[in-house]
Amino acid sequence: MASKIFIFDTTLRDGEQAPGIHLNVKEKLEIAHQLAKLNVDIIEAGFPISSPSDFEGVKAVSKAIKDRSIAALARANFKDIDAAGEALKNAANPVIHTFISSSDIHLKYQLNKSREEVLEIAAASVKRCKKYTDQIEFSAMDATRSDKEYLAKMYEIAIKNGATVLNVPDTVGYALPLEYSELIAYLMNNVKGIEDVIISVHCHNDLGLAVANSILALNHGARQIECSVNGIGERAGNAAIEEVALIIDTRKKDLDVYTDINIKEIAKTSSLVASLTGYLIAPNKAIIGKNAFAHEAGIHQDGMLKDRSTYEILKPEDIGLSASKLILGKHSGRHAFAKRLEDLGFMLSEAEIEKSFERFKLLAEKKGAISDKDLKAIVQNEIRETSEYFKLNYYNILSGTNIKSTSTVGIEINGKLFESSYNGDGPVDASFKAIDQITKLKAKLVEYVIEAVTEGKDAIGSVKIIASANGVEVMGRGISTDIIEASIKAYVDAMNRIIEKQEVE
Amino acid sequence: MASKIFIFDTTLRDGEQAPGIHLNVKEKLEIAHQLAKLNVDIIEAGFPISSPSDFEGVKAVSKAIKDRSIAALARANFKDIDAAGEALKNAANPVIHTFISSSDIHLKYQLNKSREEVLEIAAASVKRCKKYTDQIEFSAMDATRSDKEYLAKMYEIAIKNGATVLNVPDTVGYALPLEYSELIAYLMNNVKGIEDVIISVHCHNDLGLAVANSILALNHGARQIECSVNGIGERAGNAAIEEVALIIDTRKKDLDVYTDINIKEIAKTSSLVASLTGYLIAPNKAIIGKNAFAHEAGIHQDGMLKDRSTYEILKPEDIGLSASKLILGKHSGRHAFAKRLEDLGFMLSEAEIEKSFERFKLLAEKKGAISDKDLKAIVQNEIRETSEYFKLNYYNILSGTNIKSTSTVGIEINGKLFESSYNGDGPVDASFKAIDQITKLKAKLVEYVIEAVTEGKDAIGSVKIIASANGVEVMGRGISTDIIEASIKAYVDAMNRIIEKQEVE
Repeated sequence: MASKIFIFDTTLRDGEQAPGIHLNVKEKLEIAHQLAKLNVDIIEAGFPISSPSDFEGVKAVSKAIKDRSIAALARANFKDIDAAGEALKNAANPVIHTFISSSDIHLKYQLNKSREEVLEIAAASVKRCKKYTDQIEFSAMDATRSDKEYLAKMYEIAIKNGATVLNVPDTVGYALPLEYSELIAYLMNNVKGIEDVIISVHCHNDLGLAVANSILALNHGARQIECSVNGIGERAGNAAIEEVALIIDTRKKDLDVYTDINIKEIAKTSSLVASLTGYLIAPNKAIIGKNAFAHEAGIHQDGMLKDRSTYEILKPEDIGLSASKLILGKHSGRHAFAKRLEDLGFMLSEAEIEKSFERFKLLAEKKGAISDKDLKAIVQNEIRETSEYFKLNYYNILSGTNIKSTSTVGIEINGKLFESSYNGDGPVDASFKAIDQITKLKAKLVEYVIEAVTEGKDAIGSVKIIASANGVEVMGRGISTDIIEASIKAYVDAMNRIIEKQEVE
Repeated sequence: MASKIFIFDTTLRDGEQAPGIHLNVKEKLEIAHQLAKLNVDIIEAGFPISSPSDFEGVKAVSKAIKDRSIAALARANFKDIDAAGEALKNAANPVIHTFISSSDIHLKYQLNKSREEVLEIAAASVKRCKKYTDQIEFSAMDATRSDKEYLAKMYEIAIKNGATVLNVPDTVGYALPLEYSELIAYLMNNVKGIEDVIISVHCHNDLGLAVANSILALNHGARQIECSVNGIGERAGNAAIEEVALIIDTRKKDLDVYTDINIKEIAKTSSLVASLTGYLIAPNKAIIGKNAFAHEAGIHQDGMLKDRSTYEILKPEDIGLSASKLILGKHSGRHAFAKRLEDLGFMLSEAEIEKSFERFKLLAEKKGAISDKDLKAIVQNEIRETSEYFKLNYYNILSGTNIKSTSTVGIEINGKLFESSYNGDGPVDASFKAIDQITKLKAKLVEYVIEAVTEGKDAIGSVKIIASANGVEVMGRGISTDIIEASIKAYVDAMNRIIEKQEVE
């Protein structure tokens, strides 16, 4: 009988640790809800001790999602574990994931402790987790560069003290597929009590092998894969959940395993995470890249016309991708609009539907027909706005080849209109400077990315900005068919998030 | 003794077949020169029969690069092979790469031929190649879904007729690592004469396994890997050369193999190909992503400070990445400027240096200090312009919240100034419409992407546009610190490329 492979999603933990990703609690919740629809087994929601917003994120996800296991990360010390236990208090199925390094290089430079000391810490930490839950995952950090005998001893001690899952991280992404699966085989044969626990794999993608390492480990008894949406995570990231899920789905007969992933939710999950994290997906990314299903060479197209299976092992509709349908126009009513949003899987409050409907009407006025992609862009980029401390009232710009670009911006703060004019290198720069004069935040622009969400000249442009001020870094977003407008909206959104984040941290 | 692994680069062939990539002959040459510096063994320069520009590309690369093998693709028929032979005429070490399908599903839907007929075609085709060269690579398309005995027979016939390299393509990207390496082992044991030829692997990345499949095949005797820069290619692309090269370099002792790749050229090669193809690189892409070497989590940073090897198996400088240095300003002279371009590896004509210097002066006036990244942006985006049939003279725009965006554009055609005003949804849209009125090309905008090349508010923005008109599709580029200006430049560039491409095809 085929074995079930547990999918442990770490998008909100290892993924969220990637540079430039800034999710607020509401955004984390939205991703968690989508992960539940994707049907992952465990959602690792954060690292509670690391920041107040991580703590709040784990707490909110624990409260909201009752039919999945929720995990929280903790280093092997009581303070971390207590914070994780506290953040998971409301979870129906809490998992504490505690870790300590096992490689000599980490023992020396990271911990400055002896092998024996580290074993004692591991034992005490796993025991401490039992105060909060029976579901305890233990990770030996840098497992792949550790002495095998010592590693086996550490896992044995973790089992003795109550660990139910043993995770084997390839922390630096150094392992080769056969080598990694041999390590799993070694542990299966040399760790007493291992038959009663689940072996989990957590591979990093520094050499591009995270997914292959994870899949080969299944041959030797690994039964849980840790992965993230779009493969985001530290450095080159983690094993990509979409690749793991599709490999297992496409080749389940040969691998003799299965997952419970609902692969029809993959496209939606991927696009939600890409939008909220601002991490672009390359067109040639496996499964989720925009060209993953596109054929250009004439010879391939010819075969495709004759029979799809000639060149296609996956079908776009398998992962929930369908041709964008033009479904709504400026005469569409509020009811049809709300119904369509529901069909697209959005769960919005009355106020949010109202706000989306207003934006939709404005856009329909400009564009005519509104596609599902347009609708998604509206909801994903405009509706998740934070509390609007700064509210854009208007802007006017003048620019050209021999004209110094000039912008006048009006922004309301607590109902009072402030206006400022500034010049700059191009209308966007001029507008940002005018806004800076009003906000007085001395913001630094770290990143500025524009993407076309839909195609053609009346494409919706989505602008993502990463900005920092007063020690906090945030991402702001704006959309419009006009990139200047989208840029200004994104910048104002970023300034609002700076204010919001300053209050939380 | 460690075995040499040959690197067969297919960026200019399989890579160039990816949707939306449009390289002209000059751009192909530039990539080929860089591939020579990267020290790949074989450059597959194109598929000569497929289009006049592919033919010209192979011809130009064959003339220019004498110290590498140059390959050209040909289906298994005399017309294709003759075109390949003709295009390779000037190559010092020409390779003809001919292929025919071996799977039953392809035989039925693609070729509509019997197994016996296909073997005869394969034999005749390989023999035909000998008219032009002794270096003949034979590929059995869809090898991984073929009947093994039939496949072995086909390869045997190829060897008998003169093939020197047998390539084993996983055409649809369906294979799993162990399965693929077992296929290689099977062929090693069942194809007569295989010890006298080189076994090559060509894996597609539909399931994210192209690199792993290639690497595992080395265990069973594969000695050539076909790959592409940034992994570009049909659908999810090919094995990424940077991952293949770094895996072998980092783990050469364990794998007991080596390549001649000069890994210090990887960063430069990757950024050149990304820029010329317009294929973005995800921040979490292994080796070449912008975050591949970045650490955010406090715990990792701490270990890093104590010892780099704690969390880092690769160093950015290994692949030729160095911190961007501010080296030039508006007072820098022409000589210092030309010297720096040379150091950066650009080979420019006097006229190109002159043009770059002008652009540099304009930018230095606006930005002050000019970094290496800025310089690369200038050369890679501005200097490769095609013949300027349409020449931008000026533009003026007016835009704002309650203003209908209006643009006036002046464009010279054969020295005569044409002016047009138009309104639109945003200043970019208005400008494109004004340009359309002048060019009369009825262009369709297929894709529109803006990227910040450098950081901060005075970042250089690079705009890439894919547009189609009169049956040809092209990519245009423009850079500026002002995104409106960059957009207009990119659009005019695209219109010029449409004119140019119409003339060639």
